[in-house]
Amino acid sequence: MKSQKGNDLRPFFEPSAVAVIGSLAEPFGLGYGVIKNMLLFGFAGNVYPINPSYSETLGLKAYPTVNVVAEPIDLAIVITPPSTVPSIVEQCSQKGIKAVIVISEGFGEASKDGARLQQQLVDISRRTGIRIIGPNTVGLINTANNLVINPYLIDYGSIRKGSVAYCSQTGIIGAQCQALEDKAYPIGKLCDLGNKCDVNEVDILNYFADDAETKVIALHLEDVKDGRKFLEAARRAIASKPVLILKPGKSEPAARAAASHTSSLTGSDYIYESAFKQVGVIRVNTWQEFWEIPKVFVCQPLPRGNRVAIITHSGGAGVVAADMAIEAGLEIATFTANTTDKLRRRHPGLASNPVDLGPASSLSTDPLSLEDALINTALNDTNVDCAAIALYGGSMTPMAFIVEMFDRLMHSVAKPVAIWIYGTKSNMMAELSHKLESIGLPTYSELDTAVKALGAAAYYSKIRSGLDHSNLK
Amino acid sequence: MKSQKGNDLRPFFEPSAVAVIGSLAEPFGLGYGVIKNMLLFGFAGNVYPINPSYSETLGLKAYPTVNVVAEPIDLAIVITPPSTVPSIVEQCSQKGIKAVIVISEGFGEASKDGARLQQQLVDISRRTGIRIIGPNTVGLINTANNLVINPYLIDYGSIRKGSVAYCSQTGIIGAQCQALEDKAYPIGKLCDLGNKCDVNEVDILNYFADDAETKVIALHLEDVKDGRKFLEAARRAIASKPVLILKPGKSEPAARAAASHTSSLTGSDYIYESAFKQVGVIRVNTWQEFWEIPKVFVCQPLPRGNRVAIITHSGGAGVVAADMAIEAGLEIATFTANTTDKLRRRHPGLASNPVDLGPASSLSTDPLSLEDALINTALNDTNVDCAAIALYGGSMTPMAFIVEMFDRLMHSVAKPVAIWIYGTKSNMMAELSHKLESIGLPTYSELDTAVKALGAAAYYSKIRSGLDHSNLK
Repeated sequence: MKSQKGNDLRPFFEPSAVAVIGSLAEPFGLGYGVIKNMLLFGFAGNVYPINPSYSETLGLKAYPTVNVVAEPIDLAIVITPPSTVPSIVEQCSQKGIKAVIVISEGFGEASKDGARLQQQLVDISRRTGIRIIGPNTVGLINTANNLVINPYLIDYGSIRKGSVAYCSQTGIIGAQCQALEDKAYPIGKLCDLGNKCDVNEVDILNYFADDAETKVIALHLEDVKDGRKFLEAARRAIASKPVLILKPGKSEPAARAAASHTSSLTGSDYIYESAFKQVGVIRVNTWQEFWEIPKVFVCQPLPRGNRVAIITHSGGAGVVAADMAIEAGLEIATFTANTTDKLRRRHPGLASNPVDLGPASSLSTDPLSLEDALINTALNDTNVDCAAIALYGGSMTPMAFIVEMFDRLMHSVAKPVAIWIYGTKSNMMAELSHKLESIGLPTYSELDTAVKALGAAAYYSKIRSGLDHSNLK
Repeated sequence: MKSQKGNDLRPFFEPSAVAVIGSLAEPFGLGYGVIKNMLLFGFAGNVYPINPSYSETLGLKAYPTVNVVAEPIDLAIVITPPSTVPSIVEQCSQKGIKAVIVISEGFGEASKDGARLQQQLVDISRRTGIRIIGPNTVGLINTANNLVINPYLIDYGSIRKGSVAYCSQTGIIGAQCQALEDKAYPIGKLCDLGNKCDVNEVDILNYFADDAETKVIALHLEDVKDGRKFLEAARRAIASKPVLILKPGKSEPAARAAASHTSSLTGSDYIYESAFKQVGVIRVNTWQEFWEIPKVFVCQPLPRGNRVAIITHSGGAGVVAADMAIEAGLEIATFTANTTDKLRRRHPGLASNPVDLGPASSLSTDPLSLEDALINTALNDTNVDCAAIALYGGSMTPMAFIVEMFDRLMHSVAKPVAIWIYGTKSNMMAELSHKLESIGLPTYSELDTAVKALGAAAYYSKIRSGLDHSNLK
């Protein structure tokens, strides 16, 4: 049956009408929380609270069961005690609902009884064709239609719309745990798969691969249920968009911990590592890399090679960046004689890469024009494929000039740039970051993440260009 | 002569009277900037502007030369054209000034002429005994006496007082480039050594080693002029306080770049790496590690071993942390039967390390007391030497409770804790961080930095306890 359903997860992310089945008690009932968040973020579809003890909540008419709702429903959110979930999902299926998100905990991750209940969900899905995300998930996000499904009250009200699709096996990626408004990651979709009783990493990867709104895929995986299918899906996805994976369990204790909290089996990291390399997965190692490295793929072109120009106002930072670049698989670009000549005429210290603008700037009567000219010269060098640039954010930062300069630069040079922002004032650094990201430039608060992002871009570019055919067999 | 001077750098950091020799033009004259910053941060000593074209600046009487100042002066700051610097330093020496910071650029790092001028400074220092920091430095900080020497206008006015001594060969660590107020690193002293014509890494290391106010030393080094002396100084310092080093140049391009911007020679990284290991240096790799890892040593006890408890509200984050811990040289603690039993009675999922408080919390009627009990049980386990704890910062965070709990915990358990703060609101995360740091708990905005800090603490503890005698020979 399942194969006939195809892989259409659209009802989860693009429902017209959503039923929410759970406690409507204020303020901490989890059904109430789901509805409150949907309204807070401005979901425009129909929402049906389902609870026999209520006639309304948050201005919405409540219904005792899904069956009594006259209109069609695409998606149901279930947050009821585990023992009640199978029959509720059954009812959803009878109502013609195509997709259910089971937020409730207490299934395979908790006990043998829970595992039996989870198996019942698997059986219902196989028999009826209803698709299930969860159980033991915090929900999902689709910024395109302002859909934020999460049972915990969220204390901010907007998320930047973007084109990165994130997916995880832990609730910590959810809207209730992340400063998504403040950090402004360019999120398109986001999903916590929980126990993966039905929808798993292969399904979501196939869905994101085919989703026209998704440009980059970032997965946090603790296990892979079917390695062959996953690699097939990854290979297919990577042919059209980059796939980043945070896969812990490199160490034995981590692998054991993963097995215990999601009741899943994990395999030797060596196997994962070689399989990932074989298909061109970009592996990341920290939460910061998981969240931030995708940004470089959102609005920047892919580099044609791995030769990086490093441009700073600090020789010391340039040297540190050079080490990071080598470790990230980049090569420090050797400028052409033409560039060297141009730069040297400006200031003898500028001729080599990394470029330290500091000394030349401090002697210049017009440091902004100088900076503009130098960055343009370096980026236009035919030996340069991409650039890591350090920018200062403080009260003295000429923000309008910088934004205008990069806007012009990006329209004239098709090479990716990653910006490291440092400075004296957190709010100014945030403002500069916001302004640059709004014109499509990825910014980073750590130098190493900026450099690693370019390394990831160069790696993916090589994979895509098929230069390294041996890796794609 | 130099050996007779001993290694007393106190006039640099604890001057009673400071002369500032340079442009007093408002607002960007660099001498004016130095004075403005000294007043801004509240330096209480005497300040003498020196410039023949001015009679006063910023309410202070100006003098044409240092000679005409009647009172004694300890420290001179020189920011004049390079060719004028040697004679000015000579005058300072005649006036009886013991220490000079030469901020001016254009010496060894810039040209052969500059190198000749720099050699004149070396000669003057050798002949007269006057000590020189620089040239090509942005200055230094001593938070104990509110001394901030920096020529660039700084757009904040206070720096947290602490006990970490930072030293670098680049201006990017300076107050004009870092959000020291917002980030609140616990700075005691900070110094940019610049071209190291006289005071070098050995001098500063010896000074910090003997400085009673310094508990932790963090050095950014691009080169070491005398390896034997440096290792001797490092070994001596490490016997009483941890020494962290950010030493780039692992890759050949980085080493070459370092050589070009400070005109210093760098050696093979392999040699540094083994020398550092031999004496017990903690090597760090990023600016974030350089700034933040020292925090764990400031108010926390050293761990007795490397067995870490990882406590989160997210199984997924716990697994990621376990990998990071292994990589940082920690061992995932195996709880005693007694702890396992206690935790299991609270919730079956809690019995193993990493501890995921999530499922137990969500079932509890009093999750705060539960959390308190669980953290205490885990920290009191005799198999646990230290703990990495993830805390959520958002509008719903019970800050007062958390602060009280950790304050109590730290008075009853002498084991170091590093906190990773994540959450939904940047300002709430900053507030929680501030409150916890004010009671002596180190907080981190990245999970890996928190875990690496504990790894550094366990490594230093092992070095100090002499368990690994082979490393200390």
